Amino acid sequence: MSFRAEPKQQDSTAKPSLAPMMALVGDDMRKVNAHILENMQSPVALIPQLAGHLIAAGGKRLRPMLTLASAKLCAADGERQMALAACVEFIHTATLLHDDVVDESDLRRGLATANSVWGNQASVLVGDFLFSRAFQLMTADGSLKVLKVLSDASAIIAEGEVHQLMTANDIKTTEAAYMEVIQAKTAALFAAACQIGAVVAGRPESDERALASYGMNLGIAFQLVDDILDYAAPDDQLGKNQGDDFREGKITLPVLLCIAQADPQELSFWQRCLEDQNQKEGDFAQARALMEKHGTLESAKARAGDYGAQARAALADFPDNPAKQAMLEAVDFCIDRLF
Amino acid sequence: MSFRAEPKQQDSTAKPSLAPMMALVGDDMRKVNAHILENMQSPVALIPQLAGHLIAAGGKRLRPMLTLASAKLCAADGERQMALAACVEFIHTATLLHDDVVDESDLRRGLATANSVWGNQASVLVGDFLFSRAFQLMTADGSLKVLKVLSDASAIIAEGEVHQLMTANDIKTTEAAYMEVIQAKTAALFAAACQIGAVVAGRPESDERALASYGMNLGIAFQLVDDILDYAAPDDQLGKNQGDDFREGKITLPVLLCIAQADPQELSFWQRCLEDQNQKEGDFAQARALMEKHGTLESAKARAGDYGAQARAALADFPDNPAKQAMLEAVDFCIDRLF
Repeated sequence: MSFRAEPKQQDSTAKPSLAPMMALVGDDMRKVNAHILENMQSPVALIPQLAGHLIAAGGKRLRPMLTLASAKLCAADGERQMALAACVEFIHTATLLHDDVVDESDLRRGLATANSVWGNQASVLVGDFLFSRAFQLMTADGSLKVLKVLSDASAIIAEGEVHQLMTANDIKTTEAAYMEVIQAKTAALFAAACQIGAVVAGRPESDERALASYGMNLGIAFQLVDDILDYAAPDDQLGKNQGDDFREGKITLPVLLCIAQADPQELSFWQRCLEDQNQKEGDFAQARALMEKHGTLESAKARAGDYGAQARAALADFPDNPAKQAMLEAVDFCIDRLF
Repeated sequence: MSFRAEPKQQDSTAKPSLAPMMALVGDDMRKVNAHILENMQSPVALIPQLAGHLIAAGGKRLRPMLTLASAKLCAADGERQMALAACVEFIHTATLLHDDVVDESDLRRGLATANSVWGNQASVLVGDFLFSRAFQLMTADGSLKVLKVLSDASAIIAEGEVHQLMTANDIKTTEAAYMEVIQAKTAALFAAACQIGAVVAGRPESDERALASYGMNLGIAFQLVDDILDYAAPDDQLGKNQGDDFREGKITLPVLLCIAQADPQELSFWQRCLEDQNQKEGDFAQARALMEKHGTLESAKARAGDYGAQARAALADFPDNPAKQAMLEAVDFCIDRLF
C-alpha cells in the first residue's frame, strides 16, 4: 500500500494526539516560554533576532513538554523544571542551527548563496550562544546531576552528528550504524529530557532509568518515523521538503532495507543516487517505487512501532494518572504522524 | 617607523619570553596534555582525527598555562586545575573550529571548495563535541563556581563573535564597539582561565577578581597585538597570512585609527576595500602606507601597552615569587611579539 494515497480510515476524534500532554503541561509551558524568551536576549541584536525566528517558528516543543510531563509523573513540585525544560529546548535549537549549517553548506545542492553563507556564520555562533546559555541556566539551577545528564547528552549528540556525517553517501552503512546514529543524534536528548523530570522530583535512580528508557525508545521511534516521512509524507505535513534525505544521500532505514533486498540493477541505482550523488529527474519517484516493491516503509514503520511499545512498557511501574496517560498517547501520536 | 623594517635594537637574551612560565608549569602541562588526549577520544573516528590535528598543531597553549600559573600563584595544591585547564583549552579549540567555519564559508574569498565544505560540517560538529566534553569535565570536577565562570565566559565569547560579525565591513564601527568585541571574543576566556586558578585554591573573591582583571587586560592586549600583526608582521611570524583581516574586511583598531584621521580620498579607499570588499592588487600595501602615514600601528601598540600595564598592576597584591614573575613576563611577551 502507498503511505500517501490511502490514509488510514479511522475516526478522527480517536486519532492519538498531543492534546492531552498540551493540556497537562500548558500552564507550565507558558513559564518555560517566558524563560526561553528572557534568556535568548542579548545586547547583540542579531542573537534574539535569529534565535527568535527559529524559536517562534518552532514546532511542537516536544522535548521541553516531555521534561514537564515527566516531572508531573514524578509529582515534582516547585519551579525548577521550567528553567531546565528551557535548557533542553535551547540545546535542541542549537543543534538545529548547527544542522542547518551542515545542510546549507552543501555546495552540491547549489544552495550556497551569499545569503546562506551569512546564515552559516550566524547559525554557528547563535547556536553556540544558546548552548552556552543552557549551561548557564543549569549552573544557576545548581544540580550536578542535571549538568551531568545534559552535558553527557550534548556530547553524545555531537558524536552522533559526526557519525552521521561519516555514513552519508555510504550505501555500505550497516543497520547497526544507522541505529547508533539516531540513538545518539535524536534519542539521547529525548532520554535526558525525561530523566530530568525524575531528577528534579528527587526520585530514586530506578525512576530516572525508567524515564530515560521511555525517552530513548520514544526518540528512536520518532526519528524512524521522521526518516519514513521523508519518503512518505505529503509536502504540507512536513517542515522540510519531502525527498531532502534522498537528495542529500542520507542513509536511513527505508533505504537500508531496500538495499538489503536489491538486485544488481537496483543496487547500482542506489549507488548512483546516494553514493555518487548523480541524480536525475524521476529518481525520487523510482526510489519510492522500490520502497513500495520491497515494502520497506511498512517494515520501518513496524520497527518504529516496536520502539514505541518499549517506550510504553518503560512506564509500567508508574501509577496510572493523567500524566502517564498523556505520555502514553504521545508515543502513539509520534508513530501515527505517518498517516 | 616601520614595524617590519626596523626591529627594536635590544639584546636578544633580554627579550621577554614565555620560558619562565613554561618552566613553572611544565610538569603540570604534561598532565593537562594527558587530559586533553584522553578526553578527545571517541569511537567516532573523525572526532579524534580532526581534534588531534588542531590540538597537535596547536600553538603555545597560553590559556591553560595561565590557569596553571594562576593556581600556582594562589598556592593551589591538588590536581583539579589540570583537568580544568584542559576544559579551557577545549573551549578555545571549539571556538577556533567554529571560527574556521565562519572564515572558510566566506565565498567572497573564493575558498569554499568541496574540501572546505567538508571542513565546515566537521568543524561545527567536532567543535560542539569538544565544547560538550569541556562541560562534562567541569561537571565531574563538581565546582559550580567553575561551571559559572566558564559557562558565563562561553556565552560572552559567542556574543562577541556575533557582534564581530555585525561590525565586519562596517567602517562606521566605533572604537567602543571594537573594544567590546575583543573583550568578549578573546579576553573573557583569558579572564576565566586565570580566575579558575584562584577558585581551585579556595582563595577569597578579591583574589579571583584580581586574577580575572589580569587575564582580561592581558587578553585585550593580546588581541590588540594580534590585530596589529595582521598589518605589521612578516609572514613567518604568524600562523595566518598577513593581510587576512584586511581581505575579509574586519574592522580592527589599526583601521579604525586610520579612518578617524582619513581625508575624503582615504575614506573612500577604506570604504571600497573594507565595506564594498572591492579590492585590487596593491591595496594592502596602500593600507599599510596609510597606517605608516598616520602612525596608527604605533598608537595601537601604545594602547596594547596600556592594557599590559593594567594586567601587571592587577597582580600587585600577590607576593613576589616565581609564579608572579612568570606571569608578569608573559604580559611583556604578549606585547613584544610585535618585534
